[in-house]
Amino acid sequence: MPVTGPEIERLIQLLSKLPGLGPRSARRAVLQLIKKKETLLAPLAVAMADAAEKACICSICGNVDTQDPCAICSDPTREPTTLCVVEEVGDLWALERAGVHKGRYHVLGGVLSALDGVGPNDLNIGSLAERVEKNGIKEVILAMNATVDGQTTAHYITDRLEGLGVTISRLAHGVPVGGELDYLDDGTLAAAMKSRRPF
Amino acid sequence: MPVTGPEIERLIQLLSKLPGLGPRSARRAVLQLIKKKETLLAPLAVAMADAAEKACICSICGNVDTQDPCAICSDPTREPTTLCVVEEVGDLWALERAGVHKGRYHVLGGVLSALDGVGPNDLNIGSLAERVEKNGIKEVILAMNATVDGQTTAHYITDRLEGLGVTISRLAHGVPVGGELDYLDDGTLAAAMKSRRPF
Repeated sequence: MPVTGPEIERLIQLLSKLPGLGPRSARRAVLQLIKKKETLLAPLAVAMADAAEKACICSICGNVDTQDPCAICSDPTREPTTLCVVEEVGDLWALERAGVHKGRYHVLGGVLSALDGVGPNDLNIGSLAERVEKNGIKEVILAMNATVDGQTTAHYITDRLEGLGVTISRLAHGVPVGGELDYLDDGTLAAAMKSRRPF
Repeated sequence: MPVTGPEIERLIQLLSKLPGLGPRSARRAVLQLIKKKETLLAPLAVAMADAAEKACICSICGNVDTQDPCAICSDPTREPTTLCVVEEVGDLWALERAGVHKGRYHVLGGVLSALDGVGPNDLNIGSLAERVEKNGIKEVILAMNATVDGQTTAHYITDRLEGLGVTISRLAHGVPVGGELDYLDDGTLAAAMKSRRPF
């Protein structure tokens, strides 16, 4: 039985499909939105319509932007011969926020996973090989998550790019900055110890 | 430094103001929305515009609905002489979902709180007294949260309605259905013991 008007029920139902919101938190969010109708709900409706109209996926790297090619791919000041390969757009955004990569990106759109039936043809691996071959890429930085699937994918890409004369690197494993040894898993500690550096 | 287009950044910024979403989960939500542009983002924009246009607050009870008086206040089959007093609209919705109250409601819009500077005039207490006096209300059920502020407010309302010839009741305290004694606080156990019933 609906407890409120159909337009509000529909908003609750759609909002509860967002990751991180369930039916209960969607209801709380909708009440908050209606309380701040002029300052939040109305602007959000406009922002969503805007984004729905303008958001697109970059045909070169797979980034989400309001222009195609995206701002990064069309920025002439960025190093064009270094590609950072990430699983998802969210990873690209995280690296950009940190400002630690001055080259271009390539978004795979996932990882290889036998369990979920994701094979190489389901990911943007073919287009990666093509970019490396045709655009004179000198270095490919593999920035996949440090999970089993992420590392499997990294190995697969390394095999696939072999013979194209490109340097392949991966992110360092080790103790996170600010991290406490006591709370780290054995794998991380072993990696940190193995890759120790002169002080 | 923005990592994506201005329309998308603005959507992230607005979404992160929702309760339960921070900047990080708002970004994840926006990526999900853009991935499901046709099935989620566009309908959500329409639903928000609809809700912004139609949502209103019932001038009688304070419920949020798309009609004024709300569906509950204008339903002739509901017992008009029993009022259930709640703190917020979310509480009213919770009771409606449970289907445990067949009368009408009255939303206070908060609780008395000396710390937050909320006094009786900041809540819909005057309009409650007026409804009780003018509409021949026979019973007022106080359904405030079982917090210190909620119970203070309940006591204040009881004092305020004294002499109007209305029965005042409150929700029972006790062991939640499905709850385990071992995990309950002392206050709840004491209340449950004190209000024990013949079996």
